[in-house]
Amino acid sequence: MGTIETPIIVTNTLSVPTAADAVIDYILSLPGNERVESVNAVVGETNDSWLNDIRGRHLKKEHVLEAIRKAAGGPVEEDCVGAGTGTMCYDHKGGIRTSSRRLPDSRGGHTVGVLVQTNHGGVLQINGFQVGVRLGNYYMKKDLEAPGDGSCMIVVATDAPLDSRNLKRLARRALLGIARNGGVYSSGSGDYAIAVSTAREVRVPHRSSKPEQSLTLLRNEQMSPLFLAAAEAAEEAILNSLFKARRMEGRGGHVAEALPLDKIKELVAEKKE
Amino acid sequence: MGTIETPIIVTNTLSVPTAADAVIDYILSLPGNERVESVNAVVGETNDSWLNDIRGRHLKKEHVLEAIRKAAGGPVEEDCVGAGTGTMCYDHKGGIRTSSRRLPDSRGGHTVGVLVQTNHGGVLQINGFQVGVRLGNYYMKKDLEAPGDGSCMIVVATDAPLDSRNLKRLARRALLGIARNGGVYSSGSGDYAIAVSTAREVRVPHRSSKPEQSLTLLRNEQMSPLFLAAAEAAEEAILNSLFKARRMEGRGGHVAEALPLDKIKELVAEKKE
Amino acid sequence: MGTIETPIIVTNTLSVPTAADAVIDYILSLPGNERVESVNAVVGETNDSWLNDIRGRHLKKEHVLEAIRKAAGGPVEEDCVGAGTGTMCYDHKGGIRTSSRRLPDSRGGHTVGVLVQTNHGGVLQINGFQVGVRLGNYYMKKDLEAPGDGSCMIVVATDAPLDSRNLKRLARRALLGIARNGGVYSSGSGDYAIAVSTAREVRVPHRSSKPEQSLTLLRNEQMSPLFLAAAEAAEEAILNSLFKARRMEGRGGHVAEALPLDKIKELVAEKKE
Amino acid sequence: MGTIETPIIVTNTLSVPTAADAVIDYILSLPGNERVESVNAVVGETNDSWLNDIRGRHLKKEHVLEAIRKAAGGPVEEDCVGAGTGTMCYDHKGGIRTSSRRLPDSRGGHTVGVLVQTNHGGVLQINGFQVGVRLGNYYMKKDLEAPGDGSCMIVVATDAPLDSRNLKRLARRALLGIARNGGVYSSGSGDYAIAVSTAREVRVPHRSSKPEQSLTLLRNEQMSPLFLAAAEAAEEAILNSLFKARRMEGRGGHVAEALPLDKIKELVAEKKE
Repeated sequence: MGTIETPIIVTNTLSVPTAADAVIDYILSLPGNERVESVNAVVGETNDSWLNDIRGRHLKKEHVLEAIRKAAGGPVEEDCVGAGTGTMCYDHKGGIRTSSRRLPDSRGGHTVGVLVQTNHGGVLQINGFQVGVRLGNYYMKKDLEAPGDGSCMIVVATDAPLDSRNLKRLARRALLGIARNGGVYSSGSGDYAIAVSTAREVRVPHRSSKPEQSLTLLRNEQMSPLFLAAAEAAEEAILNSLFKARRMEGRGGHVAEALPLDKIKELVAEKKE
Repeated sequence: MGTIETPIIVTNTLSVPTAADAVIDYILSLPGNERVESVNAVVGETNDSWLNDIRGRHLKKEHVLEAIRKAAGGPVEEDCVGAGTGTMCYDHKGGIRTSSRRLPDSRGGHTVGVLVQTNHGGVLQINGFQVGVRLGNYYMKKDLEAPGDGSCMIVVATDAPLDSRNLKRLARRALLGIARNGGVYSSGSGDYAIAVSTAREVRVPHRSSKPEQSLTLLRNEQMSPLFLAAAEAAEEAILNSLFKARRMEGRGGHVAEALPLDKIKELVAEKKE
Repeated sequence: MGTIETPIIVTNTLSVPTAADAVIDYILSLPGNERVESVNAVVGETNDSWLNDIRGRHLKKEHVLEAIRKAAGGPVEEDCVGAGTGTMCYDHKGGIRTSSRRLPDSRGGHTVGVLVQTNHGGVLQINGFQVGVRLGNYYMKKDLEAPGDGSCMIVVATDAPLDSRNLKRLARRALLGIARNGGVYSSGSGDYAIAVSTAREVRVPHRSSKPEQSLTLLRNEQMSPLFLAAAEAAEEAILNSLFKARRMEGRGGHVAEALPLDKIKELVAEKKE
Repeated sequence: MGTIETPIIVTNTLSVPTAADAVIDYILSLPGNERVESVNAVVGETNDSWLNDIRGRHLKKEHVLEAIRKAAGGPVEEDCVGAGTGTMCYDHKGGIRTSSRRLPDSRGGHTVGVLVQTNHGGVLQINGFQVGVRLGNYYMKKDLEAPGDGSCMIVVATDAPLDSRNLKRLARRALLGIARNGGVYSSGSGDYAIAVSTAREVRVPHRSSKPEQSLTLLRNEQMSPLFLAAAEAAEEAILNSLFKARRMEGRGGHVAEALPLDKIKELVAEKKE
């Protein structure tokens, strides 16, 4: 219906129902919602089963409700936390990370922020440097059963006044951040992006006594700079999720190493010589 | 309906009907098609109106029919020819170009070929080197009225036995080639990819006396290497369309310069120092 | 992009390019459009090859341009004219027909008009009376090669202020008019509906010096009565295309009989007894 | 990915997560699935909050697991049971109901079965008789806040060998059953249909040592009779859900009357006179 009704939760594949259940509880419990009888809960997921005992279903409703309660403006905890604790990205440790771009005032001055839950495969490239190839970590070489076929969940938020049509288009561009790092939306993946606008001009009250609703929308020809902003911010957030991740041991002795930054620096230096 | 019935033509935006008309003529005229009364013509387009007198509608049916007649296996004419004569890419001269990847036998040995008609904008990057930024040619700086908001048409052909579901997924990955070079599917664009399989195992006869049809299809979990092949081949073909293009003068004295390769080499050399 | 740029033309399958070509000519020739270099022409089609020498490609650009020039408000010529001349509907003569509904003021007072080009098969029912079964004209009995697998093109226009999201939903409901008469969107069909709003509140200027655009939109919860209006109007228009059609002889001696209204009256009378 | 991995559950809107959670438990617990770490649970829903204390979240995982365990071939419990206990249809008591069609052998002999969870509004018509209008129960008259804007969930199963492309088309035709009874996919609805094939020829093993998979599929031109079967079966199942429903009292003293069959018979008799 072009609107969003709930907080957006990200979790692991098998905990989506638990998270959705918690979101419904939360919405029903809000003051003023005593008669609400329908909730379209938004929950994203990636499959972090290499490290995470995903079959254990350890996420409980309380965890999700606590996360919603604690949500606040300002800097947020990132990296190997929450739904990013167990994720793998390009066969290294991934995580949760955010990034943003602000357009110059001459382009409207709007901000595009993205949050990524990085868990996808591909052949990593950083600014075009073929990290995956140089580290010997790429599809053609790897066993198809190995981790690396996962997906990336992206949440985009902007203060630009966009309706659902242009928000969908913006979300699709955020996904390009994956391609800019060497991902190809691999076959087992459910790479997904959702975009929301926080602009007052597009806020639609859930109920209204009026049959019509006035909106002020950014015109189509203003969208390209926002598209670039979304792609760049997603690209950066994905890379940061790799740069800031730390080695993690998981279930069954599985280990995810952080991206070997020193090794990469060496390779880059070699190449320049 | 999951099948393709005609050759695929690429042309400029305003000549799509002429090309479609020619394709219909061609199909109707084929021996054995005397009773064919429906044709789903496939015609792609980009808008090359910076150089091309697109309003002049210079393409005639004869040109298209001649192109179909002359179509042959083996090396093809590329660059600033045909539907690529007037196209611009990242604000430089673009064109028509092809590229391909062949998977190793251990991955099935299938080939993915792409043809691109490059006419899109963005902030060009080559192997991560920020060509667009270094040359001062990017969205934030440029006038929105300037050329650069166009689109890229991509045709993918593979001998992998894929049905329409996986061909659509493959086409979507070819579009990632644009993102790998710095394109963001800009707002005015209609970046589009279509994919076809040439495999005998998925050939569906137009008419059949049998109610059923046997197919042999590649399984989903075999798709990721093909996805990478499509993205890489498209990326390469787009770059080659820039590398091989030549300066072109067009209508109204408009000029499209080829990508200044020497200048870029200088910039790359500077950066390394 | 959520807007419509041209008149909407309906024609036969193989004349779509000719019609699109004419629409482009028309748009380019309008005063003030001297610099327009992109036109998204909207042309619908059905396949009327049972009666029409569709392979003859008899439609010329002049015919389309004349139709556009002659377009006017007020009552229009209907039935076996224009793109409806050769169409068949439920194996009887179909045609072009319009119908509309006006909501009561308490529901906003908006009008929904539809134009149908009826050329689809199925098992005709009229107000639930099983005409197709009673006349012995239905799928299970008929030869699959026979005419009857065609499609219906529907154009919906409303003065309700709707954006493209709700116009798409409205168009989908107009298609239900087919189902209400016994059509099932048969396999070879391309049953299609497009909807446009004529409301000033949603008019988006093609160019603007402002980055934003204000719209006033009907709220989602006001849509259901419009949906019903679209379905009812399409149902009625389809039936009227049958009721008002006349026997037509076409190419190769093919004949399309009008729906035998007297025979149906007899059958209805029999049933009541 | 073109396949279905779990049983299909239907429930109320706010219990979807609970049902999905149960489905995941069930799949993970199956012998041989000890290493399964991803489950795409299929759960449909309608909002039955007029009668049901939906906010009470009374469905527990145990109920769903029991339903799966007890699932068996042969006749099933229908009407006001399970997810149909509280549903309303055309403002009367609806429910869960099934219906099917078997094509004649000359058309392949395939069976199409549908299960409906009826909870939608509209202006009921039965074989074209305007029940909703005659009973004074229709949109234009009713308060928009009243129940009647709900949705219908439809599950289609067939033994015809169809791939996901044609199954999607079949599902869309099952939705036409709603239109044949006077529904218009009202604005607040999420009318939804999913279709599955039970044919051995399209069964795709979850894992395979082979890169390819052979399928035998029904050809496109065989689909129309199946489309008609799906629309008819859904229409019939919806009507039966009304005919077999019984008066139900629900939360807060809300009452849903069964469709007044005697009254309708009287109205039909009057009309015939």
